[in-house]
Amino acid sequence: MTETLIRETVERLLEKINAISAPGPGYTRPSYSSLESDAHRVIIEEAEALGLEITRDAALNLFARLPGLDRNAPALHIGSHLDTVPMGGAYDGAAGVVGAMALATAFVKSGEAPPTDIVVTVTRAEESVWFPVSYVGSRAALGRLTAPEMQAKRADSGRTLADHMLELGGDPDAVLRNPGLAAARFVELHIEQGPVLDKAGEAFGIVHGVRGGLRYRDARIEGIWAHSGGAPRAARSDAVFALADLIVAMDKAWGAVLDEGHDLAVTFGRVDAATAEHAFAKVPGRVDFCIDIRSDDMAILERVDGMFRDEIAKVEKARGVRVVTGAQSRSQPTRLSSKLGHDIAATAAAFDLKPRFMLSGGGHDAAAFAQAGWESVMVFLRNWNGSHNPDEAMSPADLVQAVRVLHRTWSRR
Amino acid sequence: MTETLIRETVERLLEKINAISAPGPGYTRPSYSSLESDAHRVIIEEAEALGLEITRDAALNLFARLPGLDRNAPALHIGSHLDTVPMGGAYDGAAGVVGAMALATAFVKSGEAPPTDIVVTVTRAEESVWFPVSYVGSRAALGRLTAPEMQAKRADSGRTLADHMLELGGDPDAVLRNPGLAAARFVELHIEQGPVLDKAGEAFGIVHGVRGGLRYRDARIEGIWAHSGGAPRAARSDAVFALADLIVAMDKAWGAVLDEGHDLAVTFGRVDAATAEHAFAKVPGRVDFCIDIRSDDMAILERVDGMFRDEIAKVEKARGVRVVTGAQSRSQPTRLSSKLGHDIAATAAAFDLKPRFMLSGGGHDAAAFAQAGWESVMVFLRNWNGSHNPDEAMSPADLVQAVRVLHRTWSRR
Repeated sequence: MTETLIRETVERLLEKINAISAPGPGYTRPSYSSLESDAHRVIIEEAEALGLEITRDAALNLFARLPGLDRNAPALHIGSHLDTVPMGGAYDGAAGVVGAMALATAFVKSGEAPPTDIVVTVTRAEESVWFPVSYVGSRAALGRLTAPEMQAKRADSGRTLADHMLELGGDPDAVLRNPGLAAARFVELHIEQGPVLDKAGEAFGIVHGVRGGLRYRDARIEGIWAHSGGAPRAARSDAVFALADLIVAMDKAWGAVLDEGHDLAVTFGRVDAATAEHAFAKVPGRVDFCIDIRSDDMAILERVDGMFRDEIAKVEKARGVRVVTGAQSRSQPTRLSSKLGHDIAATAAAFDLKPRFMLSGGGHDAAAFAQAGWESVMVFLRNWNGSHNPDEAMSPADLVQAVRVLHRTWSRR
Repeated sequence: MTETLIRETVERLLEKINAISAPGPGYTRPSYSSLESDAHRVIIEEAEALGLEITRDAALNLFARLPGLDRNAPALHIGSHLDTVPMGGAYDGAAGVVGAMALATAFVKSGEAPPTDIVVTVTRAEESVWFPVSYVGSRAALGRLTAPEMQAKRADSGRTLADHMLELGGDPDAVLRNPGLAAARFVELHIEQGPVLDKAGEAFGIVHGVRGGLRYRDARIEGIWAHSGGAPRAARSDAVFALADLIVAMDKAWGAVLDEGHDLAVTFGRVDAATAEHAFAKVPGRVDFCIDIRSDDMAILERVDGMFRDEIAKVEKARGVRVVTGAQSRSQPTRLSSKLGHDIAATAAAFDLKPRFMLSGGGHDAAAFAQAGWESVMVFLRNWNGSHNPDEAMSPADLVQAVRVLHRTWSRR
């Protein structure tokens, strides 16, 4: 009965949430957009029907609380986010929110109170492609968002975080005054961003750490514009050739660091030599780009940042160009709760499952909770199409199974 | 007196022509735009004031004829074009038109008839960044434009060449029926696109050949979109890393071919991994690009095209991507008239000048005339800022001196 209930909740809510999107391909719900608010409303209505206690904080994070037997014990927060990257998929964020609602539904419908309060937690603005700030909503809830961050501009609108928050009914000043939630427990269900679980034929895994990142989101190379047939090779300052050198050098550096046994990922996700000024018959005098460096080890991030700067110096000298990196942004590599992870793994064993412990390549709200001193853990669901794209994949059956394991973990049986 | 007259004509006309442009930076007069027509009107008004015989052909090329002593001898056409690349400079094309008007003015005002008719020739649509067809206007005048080329679409509007021509008062059907001008002589003054003359301290040079080109204007690499932190290195199909490999490989190929003593230039003028789908936290699943390969030798163009295809095969295999080159377009390497070149050089000697004979890296209408069997030559003017950019440079004094040499070459003195 519980299994059917969980499956029905998962399927119904995924359909309702993903009916809300800017035009495709894929799903687009910008951070602090009315689309994100509409998706929150789907959860509010469902939570009201279940009789949960609903609150929203000044940053518009949503909390739907189911009372537990010991109301003084630290609550179990469970949830994720409902914003998406531009043209993202159906599951990044949504799967975790829907899974949390299914868990609450399982408790409510069984008539069994959980040992502590369970709080379905729907954060805001997790996808930092919109505002260049990591974990906006969860850090706001934790009292860790700063005044300069509140002035960050959204990539599409150019308007500030404070402005967008205010527009939707939030209170930026109150966010900055907020002492933050007291430390409790946080569990986040999420699709894996990579193919590891799917390739291994495993439905879910337990995440013991979240990679940190070091980024230059607005870097550029300045060369000299010239006619493609007129500028002799030696006299050129070609921004695109310079960037190709830099990318190939960083690819080699990535391989070398991996060969030493460290964790690292390097990505140039956006390259723009396609303005009105660029043309096939012109030597490009400028290219804009970004670089995203991720690792579970801050020392490796620092070292690769140093390698990046060394390669920049080489390219500037060899190509007669100027490289401007722009501002650096960072997120800390974070260790998650091994206690919560082992609690979940112990229950899984009763289902004849042996979930692997793995690293998350992407950042998640669970890291923000861990950094604030919470016991925080993630459960990854297998996904055979990567994330942040319209084809993100997930088997609802895998999510149902993971929710059943969580239900068993925190029920008395 | 003649020198003052030439200088005044050059300066007045450059100012009038460059007052006509889409908003900056630089100068933008698209091929077959009303801006190009407005610039032609400047020349029409000036030519009418000089009493020249003005005609326009079905493709809207402009001819302003000054009768010579022998009206049956092949005329001396002199001119260039008035369209520009997007955000181009003040001199590419304009300098040659203005220089031609200054030559006609010098003959008219001195009262001396030239030995043959002199025809100031202002072509249309020389900058093939707008329509992917080389030398549209001059080849139309020569009866060499084809029906499929007439259907080429302009890069900004998406509308056909025939459509744009019709809109401005031209007659595309008549262009296709046109047998073409009878072979005569063509001289084109033009800024050098590279720094060679300026570095050597020489005011002008004589062009004995024009490079040909082989281009893929709409190529792309298709990879697989993924989360930047989630996709392990070995499992990625990153379109941007693949393009960087390809660019670096073609740069090496370029160096190797030059080392063998051949002529070659390779340019990736436009790279687009900057759509709404691209983001710093996504492994790019697609990048669009173009490649422009130029040489004075068709065999080298073919060989480098082969190297490009070999490198594509390697990159596809190594990176798990698919490279789609799209349509190839070409222009032929062309030898210009050594007779006309030596006539001009002989006069220059009387001015104590010894102009060098050099190759043009860029394509020009002079090549279209040569390919149609005309005696055709170019005179390059030094330029210290490259071409196809807002900072194109030219000393009016250099243009005045070159016009004086041409005037002396075809006057009886």
